[in-house]
Amino acid sequence: MTLIVLNFKTYRESTGSEAIRLARICEEVSSDCSLEIVAVPQVADIYSIAGAVKIPVFSQHVDGVGYGGFTGHVTAASLKAAGASGSLINHSERRLGLAEIEASIAACRQAGLKSIVCTNNVATTRAAAALEPDYVAVEPPELIGSGIPVSKADPEIVTRSVEAVKRIAPNVGVLCGAGITHGEDLRSALDLGSEGVLLASGIIKAKDQKKALEELVSGVL
Amino acid sequence: MTLIVLNFKTYRESTGSEAIRLARICEEVSSDCSLEIVAVPQVADIYSIAGAVKIPVFSQHVDGVGYGGFTGHVTAASLKAAGASGSLINHSERRLGLAEIEASIAACRQAGLKSIVCTNNVATTRAAAALEPDYVAVEPPELIGSGIPVSKADPEIVTRSVEAVKRIAPNVGVLCGAGITHGEDLRSALDLGSEGVLLASGIIKAKDQKKALEELVSGVL
Amino acid sequence: MTLIVLNFKTYRESTGSEAIRLARICEEVSSDCSLEIVAVPQVADIYSIAGAVKIPVFSQHVDGVGYGGFTGHVTAASLKAAGASGSLINHSERRLGLAEIEASIAACRQAGLKSIVCTNNVATTRAAAALEPDYVAVEPPELIGSGIPVSKADPEIVTRSVEAVKRIAPNVGVLCGAGITHGEDLRSALDLGSEGVLLASGIIKAKDQKKALEELVSGVL
Amino acid sequence: MTLIVLNFKTYRESTGSEAIRLARICEEVSSDCSLEIVAVPQVADIYSIAGAVKIPVFSQHVDGVGYGGFTGHVTAASLKAAGASGSLINHSERRLGLAEIEASIAACRQAGLKSIVCTNNVATTRAAAALEPDYVAVEPPELIGSGIPVSKADPEIVTRSVEAVKRIAPNVGVLCGAGITHGEDLRSALDLGSEGVLLASGIIKAKDQKKALEELVSGVL
Repeated sequence: MTLIVLNFKTYRESTGSEAIRLARICEEVSSDCSLEIVAVPQVADIYSIAGAVKIPVFSQHVDGVGYGGFTGHVTAASLKAAGASGSLINHSERRLGLAEIEASIAACRQAGLKSIVCTNNVATTRAAAALEPDYVAVEPPELIGSGIPVSKADPEIVTRSVEAVKRIAPNVGVLCGAGITHGEDLRSALDLGSEGVLLASGIIKAKDQKKALEELVSGVL
Repeated sequence: MTLIVLNFKTYRESTGSEAIRLARICEEVSSDCSLEIVAVPQVADIYSIAGAVKIPVFSQHVDGVGYGGFTGHVTAASLKAAGASGSLINHSERRLGLAEIEASIAACRQAGLKSIVCTNNVATTRAAAALEPDYVAVEPPELIGSGIPVSKADPEIVTRSVEAVKRIAPNVGVLCGAGITHGEDLRSALDLGSEGVLLASGIIKAKDQKKALEELVSGVL
Repeated sequence: MTLIVLNFKTYRESTGSEAIRLARICEEVSSDCSLEIVAVPQVADIYSIAGAVKIPVFSQHVDGVGYGGFTGHVTAASLKAAGASGSLINHSERRLGLAEIEASIAACRQAGLKSIVCTNNVATTRAAAALEPDYVAVEPPELIGSGIPVSKADPEIVTRSVEAVKRIAPNVGVLCGAGITHGEDLRSALDLGSEGVLLASGIIKAKDQKKALEELVSGVL
Repeated sequence: MTLIVLNFKTYRESTGSEAIRLARICEEVSSDCSLEIVAVPQVADIYSIAGAVKIPVFSQHVDGVGYGGFTGHVTAASLKAAGASGSLINHSERRLGLAEIEASIAACRQAGLKSIVCTNNVATTRAAAALEPDYVAVEPPELIGSGIPVSKADPEIVTRSVEAVKRIAPNVGVLCGAGITHGEDLRSALDLGSEGVLLASGIIKAKDQKKALEELVSGVL
């Protein structure tokens, strides 16, 4: 099933009560189509959103630490308790060490959370796939927030990522992101072999978020 | 007013539903005495705890970033929306850069959150005070979780911190922490000139958390 | 004595044999005037430069760790042995934690190295001064490499930094940086109360580095 | 050819003039046997050591940045200019992000330096191998500096690492480390399929470093 992952980042339009409103839009659009839309709010907003909508809610970050003396860290157990069902790991705006990524994936697995590891090129995609998360999401950093879709600017990074992952860890899904905004961007992303997309500013900063999201999913209806 | 700040860290005994239970204990003990007890749960637990108790709820960490593209960061705005009224900053288990600490304090101030900057010795206490947070909490790292109270092991670090802060920024309160567990530890901490304490494992890992907290506050009743 | 600190960064024009050439230019210009010019090459270049010139050679970074198991860290002892006589600490391109800055200053002091802590605004300047390094160098990050001198774009940050430092730690010198290139920039920096400047791209990327440096120091001859 | 990589860390016995002395011991022992011994001093010591001995000199760390505004970073170009012929990357005492490791390997390749990526378990070894450095060195962190050789405490981590690497990237060599001190430790490490070892405190803190190194290599003569 195609996965549409909407990263709320820390925009004003997706924080606090605005985050709940946006998650409800995701849920409505999701119920009108056969796509799975995942809301990815800030950690502090997870509990209230998970109580308000039925679509999956993921965290933007999780630390690979368990119970103990880890003040200020985000544990998989706390995310699970708040109602999350997965997490991004190693987003380009929150990079982690190699050992930390491995520990975060393991922590997600143990807590029953899905994991999406973000990467910046084909080589790091291959390395992330070797760690066997549920998904790898390749996003060229220079295209993030640019409005120029990766599927148009650098289609090869997607096809080569898909190829590399299938060879090393065929059970790992591949998403792509950076600059994805419109229905045709989503369509191309799937045509290039990915199983979904990672979105953010293109939807969140849109004048009419619902319309923008509807236009996006129209690309695959 | 004396401040008792209970850092929940990421212990099993203070995560998810256990965090709510523990916050209620803090509230009960608090209402029986004239002390202000602050609950400091993980970020994902703030919303549910702030809805369940009337005592102040602080975050264990806050990033000095605002609205925008800051995936995986903890913004003051999201904490405020979830019901927090303050945050620890630069805890020894979650150290920050100097510029980040300054930005976190500014972010708290703008969002209407109280700030407590943790430090490890007299020199860093002096530097933190120069940034004018609401409180500085000095905690010798080697005593954290040791069960040996700072007020006994190194009383001078408390008196010298108080002195230094009063000279540089008289409006900044001084807390002390590390190894504080019993009523006499709290008593000594206040006698040395601090305005409160930072607690964690001594209470959270106690067989009977409520009894442990009651015994602690008995030191100043 | 006015201090001209030339940060070599990692430019091609200031790495390896080019670094030695540039350090010799600094030495020549220095000997023609009464100013102290400090060369700040990459760590790997310190030994050869310290052997080639008589002006002070500083490191761009030092870690606050001592002898022991600290693979990949830059110790004050190794810098001293290589011929350095000081170090930048917490440059905006190599930020450190508050506790790390304090430890780096202490490590410099113990090894007999001078310390210059870089800061980004008046509040962090005040905090850094409280740690009592030899110098604080305030550099608004947005002006670094811009060619717009801090002394023109934001003179108040310099005067307020000088004031704040003199109140908290009168023995700490104040430098300013960011965008300093010409003689008049240096002149203004000193007029605003600073005791010297931190330079980089304005000199290093100049077509004729020697001429650029001569033009700069001409501002105070 | 079997590779003996001696990490000098930042011990007093391997800093400055002591580092040159130790590198000469490595050279002498190396010339008496058919093994390749690599000296890995601190960055500030590379230039003088590379001028004093003929054995390979590696850095303990390299950043994946090139020419430009990267104050305080260690560039491959500066290491090359100082006489290094390779570098450790991501040592457990100097961990890097996934994207940084990939960039560091690329920087080494471009500068003509060999790369050894350190890892902490089989999963991260597999991920590191996918990035195709020259070597991966697996070191269980809990055994580093313990005196308990990985080849005895956890032989499976070595055999499984070798297997995993050979499947993903057969041209990548596998080293193992942590607790390696004696001739029999080296012998076992090679029997388990590794192509060499990473050493540190066992040799550096020995009363007689030369004797300790001779005893070690005797295991494979």
